Amino acid sequence: MNQDYIIPNSWSIIEEGFEAERVRSSESLFSIGNGAMGQRANFEEHYSGQTFQGSYIAGVYYPDKTKVGWWKNGYPEYFAKVLNAPNWIGINVYVNGEALDLNVCKEIRDYRRELNMKEGWYRRSFRAVMQNDVEIEVAALRFLSLDIDELGAIKYSVKPVNRDVNIIFKPYLDSGIENHDTNWEEKFWETLDIQNDDNKAVIVARTLKTHFYVGTFMENVLEVDGQPQSVSNKETRSSTYISHEYQLDVRKGATATLYKYAGYVSSMNHDKDRLVREAEKISTKAVTYGFEALLQKQKQAWASIWEMADITIEGDVKAQQGIRFNIFQLNQTYLGKDDRLNIGPKGFTGEKYGGSTYWDTEAYCIPFYMATKNQKVARSLLKYRYNQLDKAIENATKLGFVNGAALYPMVTMNGEECHNEWEITFEEIHRNGAIVFAICNYLRYTGDYSYIPEMGLEVMIGVARFWHQRVHFSADKGKYVILGVTGPNEYENNVNNNWYTNYLAQWCIRFAAEHIAKVRKEYTGDYKRIISVTNLSDEEIKTWLQVAENMYFPYSGKYQVYLQQDGFLDKDLKTVAHLPKEQRPINQKWSWDRILRSPYIKQADVLQGFYFFEDQFTKEELERHFDYYEPFTVHESSLSPCVHSIQAAVLGRMDQAYEFYLRTSRLDLDDYNKEVHEGLHITSMAGTWMSIVEGFGNMRVKNGMLSFEPKIPEQWKGYSFKVNYRGHILKVEVSHEKTSITTDGTQGLAVMLNGEKIELQPVVKP
Amino acid sequence: MNQDYIIPNSWSIIEEGFEAERVRSSESLFSIGNGAMGQRANFEEHYSGQTFQGSYIAGVYYPDKTKVGWWKNGYPEYFAKVLNAPNWIGINVYVNGEALDLNVCKEIRDYRRELNMKEGWYRRSFRAVMQNDVEIEVAALRFLSLDIDELGAIKYSVKPVNRDVNIIFKPYLDSGIENHDTNWEEKFWETLDIQNDDNKAVIVARTLKTHFYVGTFMENVLEVDGQPQSVSNKETRSSTYISHEYQLDVRKGATATLYKYAGYVSSMNHDKDRLVREAEKISTKAVTYGFEALLQKQKQAWASIWEMADITIEGDVKAQQGIRFNIFQLNQTYLGKDDRLNIGPKGFTGEKYGGSTYWDTEAYCIPFYMATKNQKVARSLLKYRYNQLDKAIENATKLGFVNGAALYPMVTMNGEECHNEWEITFEEIHRNGAIVFAICNYLRYTGDYSYIPEMGLEVMIGVARFWHQRVHFSADKGKYVILGVTGPNEYENNVNNNWYTNYLAQWCIRFAAEHIAKVRKEYTGDYKRIISVTNLSDEEIKTWLQVAENMYFPYSGKYQVYLQQDGFLDKDLKTVAHLPKEQRPINQKWSWDRILRSPYIKQADVLQGFYFFEDQFTKEELERHFDYYEPFTVHESSLSPCVHSIQAAVLGRMDQAYEFYLRTSRLDLDDYNKEVHEGLHITSMAGTWMSIVEGFGNMRVKNGMLSFEPKIPEQWKGYSFKVNYRGHILKVEVSHEKTSITTDGTQGLAVMLNGEKIELQPVVKP
Repeated sequence: MNQDYIIPNSWSIIEEGFEAERVRSSESLFSIGNGAMGQRANFEEHYSGQTFQGSYIAGVYYPDKTKVGWWKNGYPEYFAKVLNAPNWIGINVYVNGEALDLNVCKEIRDYRRELNMKEGWYRRSFRAVMQNDVEIEVAALRFLSLDIDELGAIKYSVKPVNRDVNIIFKPYLDSGIENHDTNWEEKFWETLDIQNDDNKAVIVARTLKTHFYVGTFMENVLEVDGQPQSVSNKETRSSTYISHEYQLDVRKGATATLYKYAGYVSSMNHDKDRLVREAEKISTKAVTYGFEALLQKQKQAWASIWEMADITIEGDVKAQQGIRFNIFQLNQTYLGKDDRLNIGPKGFTGEKYGGSTYWDTEAYCIPFYMATKNQKVARSLLKYRYNQLDKAIENATKLGFVNGAALYPMVTMNGEECHNEWEITFEEIHRNGAIVFAICNYLRYTGDYSYIPEMGLEVMIGVARFWHQRVHFSADKGKYVILGVTGPNEYENNVNNNWYTNYLAQWCIRFAAEHIAKVRKEYTGDYKRIISVTNLSDEEIKTWLQVAENMYFPYSGKYQVYLQQDGFLDKDLKTVAHLPKEQRPINQKWSWDRILRSPYIKQADVLQGFYFFEDQFTKEELERHFDYYEPFTVHESSLSPCVHSIQAAVLGRMDQAYEFYLRTSRLDLDDYNKEVHEGLHITSMAGTWMSIVEGFGNMRVKNGMLSFEPKIPEQWKGYSFKVNYRGHILKVEVSHEKTSITTDGTQGLAVMLNGEKIELQPVVKP
Repeated sequence: MNQDYIIPNSWSIIEEGFEAERVRSSESLFSIGNGAMGQRANFEEHYSGQTFQGSYIAGVYYPDKTKVGWWKNGYPEYFAKVLNAPNWIGINVYVNGEALDLNVCKEIRDYRRELNMKEGWYRRSFRAVMQNDVEIEVAALRFLSLDIDELGAIKYSVKPVNRDVNIIFKPYLDSGIENHDTNWEEKFWETLDIQNDDNKAVIVARTLKTHFYVGTFMENVLEVDGQPQSVSNKETRSSTYISHEYQLDVRKGATATLYKYAGYVSSMNHDKDRLVREAEKISTKAVTYGFEALLQKQKQAWASIWEMADITIEGDVKAQQGIRFNIFQLNQTYLGKDDRLNIGPKGFTGEKYGGSTYWDTEAYCIPFYMATKNQKVARSLLKYRYNQLDKAIENATKLGFVNGAALYPMVTMNGEECHNEWEITFEEIHRNGAIVFAICNYLRYTGDYSYIPEMGLEVMIGVARFWHQRVHFSADKGKYVILGVTGPNEYENNVNNNWYTNYLAQWCIRFAAEHIAKVRKEYTGDYKRIISVTNLSDEEIKTWLQVAENMYFPYSGKYQVYLQQDGFLDKDLKTVAHLPKEQRPINQKWSWDRILRSPYIKQADVLQGFYFFEDQFTKEELERHFDYYEPFTVHESSLSPCVHSIQAAVLGRMDQAYEFYLRTSRLDLDDYNKEVHEGLHITSMAGTWMSIVEGFGNMRVKNGMLSFEPKIPEQWKGYSFKVNYRGHILKVEVSHEKTSITTDGTQGLAVMLNGEKIELQPVVKP
């Protein structure tokens, strides 16, 4: 653990005391978002210390030029970058002419941040003695409305404590912002129009190249001690900036408050020529409701999210805070309303990495959204890939594949590849399998077959074609091999016959063939359409199956384990226990070649396969592979500990499961990897949820029936979670004594509990 | 072959006819250099068409920031870049007020370039009709003095053909130049001082960061029809530029000539505060000699180079032109006078690639310099590496090696790594072996043992330590293995047990151990010093030898060949003959992953080992390996065909040997790889020389005796070459009928010819 300043609390993230060196970390941890937009917890007022400014709009990106040391054929010329958007949170404050700036105040007391996860708001408050010896109390409450997702609201209050003062509020909009993480130091925004009308202002700007038009707006309302003030405002503007200026004389002990209603309207959702008018509509609506009413709605909206998604943990407040932080951030990032969007690895908390969609979505996030929302949300995430199938075929074609073979990009925003390391971009192709696995997982959990004939089968065919072309027959082995790949364990590059990849390839082909047969029989209309689009023949399917039947898998007879890849046994097989502590994390201490030739595993690789396809292996096989690979795993990917936690729980090793759980659930809060200042690890948060539900709760769908075999870590008194399963909301409560499962639907449901079938009775609610 | 505009000629490179699209290619092909400086064949007068300006000073570099897509630990923060230096060749010309610019002339006739390799000068001439209908004849003759290597001279003549005209010459110096190939578009030069005095001028500029101070100077002399003109000049200057302006009224048919004596003096060779004075000294000397006398000296200097280095080929003018072009360019690039310098892959002809010294020097260039200069030159090249041993140890330490292990950089200017692709920088470690092989080769050829106790042994110890630490014991194989390397064939990355690398590692250890024993016995003083510097113990040497004794080599029993690396037989082993022509070169047509998993070989890898260690294998083994690997080799490295040519000759396959020879010798003249506009492939030119001397001539040193078994391609009538062997100059003349070997020394020498010992009698010269 690298930091521990976050105060344990079951529902809030709290920081107390001002420390300049924590500012950027806290900006990440206290980020807020509502699925449509989000922003780091930057200060409203000017701050001259170290800060990382970030505001983001879902789906709005910029194609930055690709930067590499040495160009390789097939790299994308441009790739989508998460884009820092115009700033609307800014409120500069002057007291008796001096700018409030926490970096230069004489004294800061009672500094406190709270991110209230239950109600969905963020508040910062402090008492400061300024250079001019004026002492003030400041409180800033901010939220991004779930209800009106283009709107944010800020209540910013200043109370002079030791004398009467003159206060100036300068709320502003600024489109002259820059990206922190960019290749060529270009500006990404072009400001087209600035409109100002009384207390309202709008800046219309568009992104270069992609031409997203965004209206960033504000409307300001002033109060002193709760009394509305009508103060005429003075405008300041530049070509990319507009501010209002409100002057007030405020008596000692009185509180001056500025309400700023602001946000974005964009051409993703509106006619680009109507943005000013749309912005006005929203701010007028906001002012009409007023801050308190909007906040009330916010609390209700979050209450209904928690109603479905909450996990409670009794007897371990840090674990409780950790899991809620994960669930909260996932919901801040993606709510499943828009099938053009996906779950970015940093959500709205930072801009590292181009693009937003990794295989994390399919492997880690879909189970969470499937169980805590309704099935439309998961379907929407699947459809996102279906919509990008043409681009995936184009991508594969670029790499020399033919006949409609599809390779989904490693990371993308619009279906195009956003990654540019050959060993990842061209070789970490297992991602293609995860996309099909998610279809299988969705079918298994929801029972909704319709997705397959309507969309899924085309994806499955494109992926099966890819695998069929990507293998070749090794005369030496008499089997089909897959050379030159990078598995989930990115601490191996360009290896041959990565077991996980070979296994997925075989499975994808068989799964596609099985469902082609089923659709042919049961969905003749869809089948005809699909055959005509894909030009698929029986002969072709036979050649696929030929490959699947004769796939090679590296195996050690001595250890009776599948080998991560060819040659794994040649390594210097010292376990992680032999690694001196000062050499970890190895990705910060070792050169890349040393990492590559070591046996150390960044994240579950063979074990990832055992996780996906648990039912295809015996528990003894799982145990043998877990015991073989776990000791080599350094978990330097945020996606690793959750899989190990689930498997440790399955194997009844609760101490280990709990240890992995802690590591995943508080990764960012405790900043294990010393990088939280760059943003949060959003997608891995879904893995934390899985650790509890699939790990401790051992929830599975077996033969179309939900099954649980819950276990509980010693450290906890009890825990509970809810899942939405095929229209039933189940609540599972686990203590050391017993497990209770209830459903609040109107229908009963049969489930398996610890291997026995039980019938859940509906609780008819008043 | 991609171009064929160079006119075959046994001593000159000639272009006739002006084609704008050839300008950049010809700028490379007609480049001139004198070992200390060099420049592309840019036009003296302004040219508004496509051009790639380049002037270079040996040893003067700039540390550019490293650019990568994704940073890896161990990458250099900065790396040395070949630096475009201030321009001194510029002479702008105005005729009746119109600027001469070949890009806008109405007509260009009799355009001709000649690079006279015999005499070491470059001349461009043409007749042009300008926009204003003035017709002129222009001739520009230029050379870089071998005699005074800080000096260049230009004779620039203009003759109006159809009317009397006013001519203005504006010779200039310009330090406001930019690099073509730079990461961050920064300027690299800071201009400190501009001095102007009558017909002389100097710009003193220094490189940023590295602080090389360079005085770029000129002195101008004017003539009309051979009569000196004293015309007062007008100065134009900016902060980075100075020109003189000479106005002349010239009658129709008369010739106005500007002589420009110019060049560089730098702080590498002079006190930085005396550069202006040093520059004046040189230009005064030049003016005193005069152009014709300087040119005379130039011819003499080149004559004495050719006297030793020439290869003649009868009956094949293109082959003759090719080999002379190679020998000429090598001599333009490096003359062995300065042990701080080395042989850059592009010489003075372009700026691609950071750094200048690759393993090319040791593997390809040393044999050429050893045989065509005296042994001091080769020793100087070896010493270059000795001088950089500390940096090589530092480099290895950065990658986690200890105890004085040394890893020489992939490419360097000052001993620091200049490369930044992990699969090369960290993994193409066979380069470390080539550096020791060169010591062995030097010893074998020159018989000069002194280098080993004085310097070489320390290098050998550092390298042996590296290999000893880089292997590890594979419990599975019961042998030492080397994982995660890239061999000479860069179309494989991060492979295990590359045979060539493993073989070199074993050999390096044994060679070091053998010479440690010899030095201990025979050079006790040196031995003591070395032991005290390296802290070497007998125990340590034992552990090295333990590794060498138990090194693993991948081998196929079925094919009875060593395998290029583990898993090679898993590939889809279709030979190059199966590759459709339109898919070649694969490095321009295929994505990187496809290249990597293919069996195709960029350059000799296993065969490189058979070349270095020919005497350790039987001819049958060579044949078997050649027959196995040659069909997979695409020769997309300029360093590949020469090795294959030599081996084909050894195997008596003269057609194949000749085919490879042509490919290597006219690589740039015929622009096989469509990239000659970026500069020439200097280091591979030494391979061309080897193809004749070691291939056709089959020159070897066996048991301390020079041996020849010459063969001759059918297409040739005869060929001859000379070598300097231990103080004897031997001339070998080969025809289809016979081989004659003569020596012009005063001593006789015994050599082997076709397996028989013969005594060469000295020819006493008058």
